[in-house]
Amino acid sequence: MKTIGYAARDAKTPLAPYAFERRALRDNDVALEILYCGVCHSDLHQSRDDWKEWGPTLYPCVPGHEIIGQVVAVGPKVTRHKVGDAVAVGTIVDSCQQCDQCRRGEQQMCREVPTLTYNGRDRLTCETTHGGYSKHIVVRDEFVLRLPEGLDPSRAGPLLCAGITVYSPLRTWNVGPGSRVGVVGIGGLGHLAVRLAAGLGATVTVITRSAAKAAEAKALGADHVIVSTSDEAMKAGASSLDVIIDTVPVSHDVSPYVALLDVEGVLVIVGNLGPVPAFSSLPLVMGRRRITGSPVGGLPQTQELLDFCARKNILPDCEIVPMQQINEAFTRMDQGDVHYRFVIDMASLTAA
Amino acid sequence: MKTIGYAARDAKTPLAPYAFERRALRDNDVALEILYCGVCHSDLHQSRDDWKEWGPTLYPCVPGHEIIGQVVAVGPKVTRHKVGDAVAVGTIVDSCQQCDQCRRGEQQMCREVPTLTYNGRDRLTCETTHGGYSKHIVVRDEFVLRLPEGLDPSRAGPLLCAGITVYSPLRTWNVGPGSRVGVVGIGGLGHLAVRLAAGLGATVTVITRSAAKAAEAKALGADHVIVSTSDEAMKAGASSLDVIIDTVPVSHDVSPYVALLDVEGVLVIVGNLGPVPAFSSLPLVMGRRRITGSPVGGLPQTQELLDFCARKNILPDCEIVPMQQINEAFTRMDQGDVHYRFVIDMASLTAA
Repeated sequence: MKTIGYAARDAKTPLAPYAFERRALRDNDVALEILYCGVCHSDLHQSRDDWKEWGPTLYPCVPGHEIIGQVVAVGPKVTRHKVGDAVAVGTIVDSCQQCDQCRRGEQQMCREVPTLTYNGRDRLTCETTHGGYSKHIVVRDEFVLRLPEGLDPSRAGPLLCAGITVYSPLRTWNVGPGSRVGVVGIGGLGHLAVRLAAGLGATVTVITRSAAKAAEAKALGADHVIVSTSDEAMKAGASSLDVIIDTVPVSHDVSPYVALLDVEGVLVIVGNLGPVPAFSSLPLVMGRRRITGSPVGGLPQTQELLDFCARKNILPDCEIVPMQQINEAFTRMDQGDVHYRFVIDMASLTAA
Repeated sequence: MKTIGYAARDAKTPLAPYAFERRALRDNDVALEILYCGVCHSDLHQSRDDWKEWGPTLYPCVPGHEIIGQVVAVGPKVTRHKVGDAVAVGTIVDSCQQCDQCRRGEQQMCREVPTLTYNGRDRLTCETTHGGYSKHIVVRDEFVLRLPEGLDPSRAGPLLCAGITVYSPLRTWNVGPGSRVGVVGIGGLGHLAVRLAAGLGATVTVITRSAAKAAEAKALGADHVIVSTSDEAMKAGASSLDVIIDTVPVSHDVSPYVALLDVEGVLVIVGNLGPVPAFSSLPLVMGRRRITGSPVGGLPQTQELLDFCARKNILPDCEIVPMQQINEAFTRMDQGDVHYRFVIDMASLTAA
């Protein structure tokens, strides 16, 4: 299947149009016309080969793992989807489907390593996978999610990575009515964390360095704001939270946030994949506080999230851009100049 | 009530005999003749004023919070204990008894700060509390535990601090048959962690720096031993454990232990109250691994531990010493020269 997309050819050059071939449909494959694709910070990092230590970028690299589309063809053994269905594909497109993690629906932690939507290797052919910055994609049935009715397809994309990344820990730690949830960092992940935690019935506190962001946080649905540069505010907030979703994407001292956790409270790192600087074990020991992390979510939970968002009318704030503006979007995203997520309108790409 | 004990007069001088007064029995007080008292590393630290940053030592300091005794008198409103009962007192002797933590039986995390068995302040009189290195003690009814029949009183003492410190996290993290528990450090806490985890039905792996300790670990009941200085052994043990009890009492890199945790596994720090050096968030994020700590345990759980140990015939290995040898015991404990816990035989002290 011929298609067209935008690819990085190397770590330095801007993304540019790229005509390529999607694989011929296997028996259990679904072919999608992509309508929208969210722009994730990972797309930028992978394009620029920023993650060499975990494996090099395989060029040409077609990024994109927040995919919304419509089914245009199905293989003969596809049971879940049919032509015309509104569907979604997230960060992974295959896994071993045999291990304990796959069996419990946590395919993102597959023991045999899941196949990433882009910069992965197809499990059968070893071909490099290409992501959603393209007009079409072919994905096996089980890794294609149903886009529920009523969920705006132009804004649903970021739920597939940013959304599930913050929703999954809220579910792991049983957030619901009565829970006191803190969110550190108000960006693509953070603003969804506020809305999702509020949607689950929690009382939400945004922790931000800037007093100017207080109104913004409240508009997103936060009940409280703690300005972290105020010693007084941080002291007043001590031991007041059950779960903190820490979306700050760079290495940072977690001690001030740990101090906001109540007994048995948990700080969940979802933003920073680098080092956690030294901190005191005392608040961990004395109050059984916890520091953990969380990686996107499995397929059943991602479907649950989509259904939950449709039911609760929760969506990210998105700026819709044409494919041709992806390099400007990368630059602006890198500068934090987006409220809160770019989504590419694939109608801007002429079909292959 | 006149009694006699051993006290530190300042941070530098050895412990020496000290005659002092226990408070007159309040309505809900129990008076104990102390038969045995375990020697905890905290006793040494507190005697030497090592923990100034958390509050100075109040001299004279009578340490001891692993107390086994017999009831010799009770106040008129005491309901739980009667004269002649075999009883035990641990690390705390009072708390607010009103807050959420007290109400759920986690008095060690009392919001109003629990009253420590020694170097605390009595909640009514503000007098300094004195611990178990003495012939008698007076403790309110609710903070006196029942010593179950069949539990050797000369070896039960260390269960009250060392034992509950490792038992509590095993219970918090639902250790039972099928659980894979790692224990780092084979000392007072570690050797009890091995026995208790095994007693709960877990498969136990000791992680030790010294190959020479392998036989010792197996004799304690460990199923497996990983010698942490062997890269090969550590690699083979990757992702193999559900819970690790880390009893190492000094600041140390936790990364090698985190690597041994399986998905959603938890490292529980119980030994080190100081800094945790920087580590990578990646294994936390990618496998939802957790780092936490745990502080002794509440009264119901400590009673549960005593009953469990009586039923399972689990006891620490102890070296029984007379009160007069406490300073030698401190020196040897400081050098790690004890298998695995000293207990003072209070019969060695002439009654006041």
